[in-house]
Amino acid sequence: MESAGFLDETVALLERTPKTVAALLDGLPEGWLDTPDTAAGGWTPRDVVGHLISAELANWIPRAELVVAKGTSEPFDSFDRFAHVERDAGKSVEELVEWFGSLRNQNLARLQELVQSDADLDRRGLHPQLGEVTLRQLLSAWTVHDLDHVQQIYSSLAGSRDVAVGPFKIFLGILTRRDG
Amino acid sequence: MESAGFLDETVALLERTPKTVAALLDGLPEGWLDTPDTAAGGWTPRDVVGHLISAELANWIPRAELVVAKGTSEPFDSFDRFAHVERDAGKSVEELVEWFGSLRNQNLARLQELVQSDADLDRRGLHPQLGEVTLRQLLSAWTVHDLDHVQQIYSSLAGSRDVAVGPFKIFLGILTRRDG
Repeated sequence: MESAGFLDETVALLERTPKTVAALLDGLPEGWLDTPDTAAGGWTPRDVVGHLISAELANWIPRAELVVAKGTSEPFDSFDRFAHVERDAGKSVEELVEWFGSLRNQNLARLQELVQSDADLDRRGLHPQLGEVTLRQLLSAWTVHDLDHVQQIYSSLAGSRDVAVGPFKIFLGILTRRDG
Repeated sequence: MESAGFLDETVALLERTPKTVAALLDGLPEGWLDTPDTAAGGWTPRDVVGHLISAELANWIPRAELVVAKGTSEPFDSFDRFAHVERDAGKSVEELVEWFGSLRNQNLARLQELVQSDADLDRRGLHPQLGEVTLRQLLSAWTVHDLDHVQQIYSSLAGSRDVAVGPFKIFLGILTRRDG
């Protein structure tokens, strides 16, 4: 894989996520938004955006900075997957989407400072469960984590029409997969 | 379920789909776009948008019109899930996304002509495999079909980073689910 291409592709995906989430969720009627995702911990779309915010605050860029500053001499901090629950109580989904976009913009600016050359992508850090990982793997995981959690929002939205589709459900894998 | 709310909610979701797909795919580098989705027939994002176009042309609104015009006296036409393959050869993903958005706008205008009252949502038609279905079920299936296929685009995008994430893959359900 050509590394300049890799970084450009990574940024292209990461900068799209807040825009796609805003295009989907801003102003969407409440009737769509209150069904938890059964397949992945029972989160609503609001919880998922909160979790994406947590990862902007405490996961990807802090870990990339640690790779650059310390290499494998110091493991990454563990990441709290439930930090959003208390922190985001009372915030609207639109507020959360806007906050996520703002954090993402700051973090993409920081990323471009941290990665100056192809060789930087091969730098290694120490993941507390996975052991040694490269910066390229960390950045790839950042993009796929976005895709995974936006996909989770779609499962949750579909769940709110699980009964309403009636007999069509057998053709709709997004619903049958929710049943396990 | 309150029916005016149902129609408003349905339109709110349906009008968002072309916008979210455009926000995600327009200008996204080719390196993201060439991996087929393993879980659902091997489609790339371009194929999925083509299939959504086919459904705008030949599925939802033609069926809703048949419900209103003929009730259960005439079954819906079968729907060709592969109509896009020849039709869309040579078209860019951006052209397809734009076409989809244009068809969707026309179809939402037609929908508002077809459904004038709550009672219309209980009208019945005859599905060739499923038997009698209500207009409310058909419109619910239209929204969930959108969600299902946008979710499929996300699986395909993630697939293009299946190797690059390295050891992080075990935390990324969108990738482990691709392996069956």
